[in-house]
Amino acid sequence: MLQKKKNAVLVDGVILNGPIMDSKAGEKFVEEACKIIMEEVIQKADDVTEKVCEWQAPETLKQILDLEMRDTGESHQKLLQLCRDVIQYSVKTSHPRFFNQLYAGIDYYSLVARFITEALNPSVYTYEVSPVFLLVEEAVIKKMIEFIGWEEGDGIFNPGGSVSNMYAMNLARYKFCPEIKEKGLSGLPRLVLFTSEECHYSMKKAASFLGIGTENVYFIKTDERGKMIPEELEKQVQRARKEDKCLVINCVYSLGRPFVLCNFQLPFSIYKFCRADSVAWNPHKMLLAGIQCCALLVKDNSGLLKKCYSAKAAYLFQQDKFYDVSYDTGDKSIQCSRRPDAFKFWLMWKALGTTGLEERVNRALALARYLVEEIKKREGFQLLLEPEYANVCFWYIPPSLRRMEDGPEFWQKLHQVAPIIKERMMKKGSMMLGYQPHQGKVNFFRQVVISPHVSREDMDFLLDEIELLAKDL
Amino acid sequence: MLQKKKNAVLVDGVILNGPIMDSKAGEKFVEEACKIIMEEVIQKADDVTEKVCEWQAPETLKQILDLEMRDTGESHQKLLQLCRDVIQYSVKTSHPRFFNQLYAGIDYYSLVARFITEALNPSVYTYEVSPVFLLVEEAVIKKMIEFIGWEEGDGIFNPGGSVSNMYAMNLARYKFCPEIKEKGLSGLPRLVLFTSEECHYSMKKAASFLGIGTENVYFIKTDERGKMIPEELEKQVQRARKEDKCLVINCVYSLGRPFVLCNFQLPFSIYKFCRADSVAWNPHKMLLAGIQCCALLVKDNSGLLKKCYSAKAAYLFQQDKFYDVSYDTGDKSIQCSRRPDAFKFWLMWKALGTTGLEERVNRALALARYLVEEIKKREGFQLLLEPEYANVCFWYIPPSLRRMEDGPEFWQKLHQVAPIIKERMMKKGSMMLGYQPHQGKVNFFRQVVISPHVSREDMDFLLDEIELLAKDL
Repeated sequence: MLQKKKNAVLVDGVILNGPIMDSKAGEKFVEEACKIIMEEVIQKADDVTEKVCEWQAPETLKQILDLEMRDTGESHQKLLQLCRDVIQYSVKTSHPRFFNQLYAGIDYYSLVARFITEALNPSVYTYEVSPVFLLVEEAVIKKMIEFIGWEEGDGIFNPGGSVSNMYAMNLARYKFCPEIKEKGLSGLPRLVLFTSEECHYSMKKAASFLGIGTENVYFIKTDERGKMIPEELEKQVQRARKEDKCLVINCVYSLGRPFVLCNFQLPFSIYKFCRADSVAWNPHKMLLAGIQCCALLVKDNSGLLKKCYSAKAAYLFQQDKFYDVSYDTGDKSIQCSRRPDAFKFWLMWKALGTTGLEERVNRALALARYLVEEIKKREGFQLLLEPEYANVCFWYIPPSLRRMEDGPEFWQKLHQVAPIIKERMMKKGSMMLGYQPHQGKVNFFRQVVISPHVSREDMDFLLDEIELLAKDL
Repeated sequence: MLQKKKNAVLVDGVILNGPIMDSKAGEKFVEEACKIIMEEVIQKADDVTEKVCEWQAPETLKQILDLEMRDTGESHQKLLQLCRDVIQYSVKTSHPRFFNQLYAGIDYYSLVARFITEALNPSVYTYEVSPVFLLVEEAVIKKMIEFIGWEEGDGIFNPGGSVSNMYAMNLARYKFCPEIKEKGLSGLPRLVLFTSEECHYSMKKAASFLGIGTENVYFIKTDERGKMIPEELEKQVQRARKEDKCLVINCVYSLGRPFVLCNFQLPFSIYKFCRADSVAWNPHKMLLAGIQCCALLVKDNSGLLKKCYSAKAAYLFQQDKFYDVSYDTGDKSIQCSRRPDAFKFWLMWKALGTTGLEERVNRALALARYLVEEIKKREGFQLLLEPEYANVCFWYIPPSLRRMEDGPEFWQKLHQVAPIIKERMMKKGSMMLGYQPHQGKVNFFRQVVISPHVSREDMDFLLDEIELLAKDL
């Protein structure tokens, strides 16, 4: 029975006929904004004559941007100007001379995938609302597992490496003692987590979030290259056993990797001691999939992920659906709404092929090796250590310190050099490069090559620019 | 000293001069894909003659999509076809007749903001790499706190409501006993969490993830409208006290809201008993900000969030930076890389103003009330209960059941009706509407109005279409 109501229907003074949005005006706005994005971000991504950043102090930037949200809306013209301002004062992480973080550059395929998913706005939990993205996630996880070299496995995309580490820790303790899910930790002896003293800071965050406590993270001493010392690990395990605690040896691969120094091969004796049951893989870093894109992969294929994480919400995971509900994989997640992050990695992989991805990584490593050799040739530059991956850590010793005697005063003065150079490069906008102190070593630069837009010329520029910025120091 | 190297530089057989990507071809690919997105997703968002979904069973869809990732990449032409396929077989959550989930519709401003951030690819942890987005987040959180009616507060955007609930629970226990951060839960008496038996399933997930354990979630009985019964809460608290356990009364506002039935006003006596210290606010739901957009807001302004979550990574949060490092707010988060989700809410709020947002919500509520009245008028439709918000829960009793006596057989048969209608509507692609059983009640439909593209005509269509699909049942 089709009813027709030609007159306007009012409920509580609200007219309910027709939509309340002007679709045509909205579409035009999207088109105009896309033109700005194309011209101001995408087409400038490979242009080294552009600034990496246009520095403004927080208080100044607040005044430039009209941050306040008001009762009435702004015109499209004003909003488009706002979009231009946002772009202008944002850091251009796709610039070939943005070396500041472990993500950089632009991948056109991943970007297209992200535009598609933003427009479609899916949530990946059931096949009924997310058929394509669930199948894509399944295919990507399968491929990643193959790539690692496991015969089988399982996995889930989630909001980043830190959250992946939490997933892995919680899985490890669940496997060790499944009642933890229901009973919690309070009845149990303490759980202890072993990790490298050079691990990522997410380990401590995870230990406290999961109720383990940061004091129960036993940090294992490392050698001068940042690698865990097997005897130290054994010593800590013995210590924990004596204290009559439960043991969870956390086997997530990334935990073993010295994060800053990035020498990621562990001594064989540690591999023997605890082989990885899970891997956290972040394609949003060196593979340029865009933040966020991260999977936790587990070797187990007996449904451990699901058993550990499921809560069986009846309003999502109805068992009387007309299709195979084993495709409704959302209950493996700690999230409810979840982004289709696997899709951007998938489209990129389809576009470049495994060899294209490999070429990028090889090129980045070759550029890092080139930079290392150049650093060795130049006066004033000093490597912290020979890198094994794409992170090149080095000091720049400015002219006034080169004749100084090695001693506390020298290091104290050198400690102040990197922050000054950093300030100058930010204010000039010529490049961005991170610095930090680490394990008793004074401030040094950490250069990371990631973007396929980076060339040898940018490596030379990096060193030239540091010399130029610091010539009076 | 500027060095010039005109000849190609080779390292390990890799040529390092110039970039390895063809930017022009990449930009062209983005432009062509954007055209497809514009035509196939954005311009069709308000067109009710389009299908909501084009149903394919998993095995068939796998064959249609070429999911395999190979050694060599695909041509741009092939990739663009792939993008078309992905769009074609994805559910159109922006369709005016997608009523399946608590997100729906399209907001053009939020979409533009999302395109901008995908192109800029920022991570929100330090002012140096994310100046604009950190200031925007600060402004949005301030405005949200004002909106709630608190005099002051703090907050953080994070990957969704489930994660927000975890943040809040962990904050609550930290406030109760700050040593939990270092010592963990093992030395402590059990923590108990009180929540409504009608709470969202993320409560259980959170309790197990945080080491509290699902058995220590005390579910409080609710009345026939799904509201927590004050006496039952008091009874459970007494029970916990007798058992000599520690108490954490979880005061997150959303916990009190019956999730499915959505009658969110608690009796005053419960408000008196435990007023909210934190609020999880998901603008990616009714406000259409796009998944994911969620903030945890806390009333505390003494730095509780930071104290509870900080890990002080030296490689990000250097204290000797040249600007005010109190703007480096990333250490309040459990994540490291974090998306600029506040920005899309901000641009939308700027565009629509508070009154524009209000108008959308009022319209959705008026449409829900209209639907309720229509349901009451039509034979065969039966409300579960009078809704207080935008969720309308109802049964459709098909012709063959209308003369049946009330009894177990009737309810058992009615239970099977919604899944059949759902299957038919999915295969036809005319609309999408969720169903579920709940607290002893057999399968019913849950209709949610969110999108501003929805009109009274769509409400009529919904009821007509159910009648049409079920006329032979």
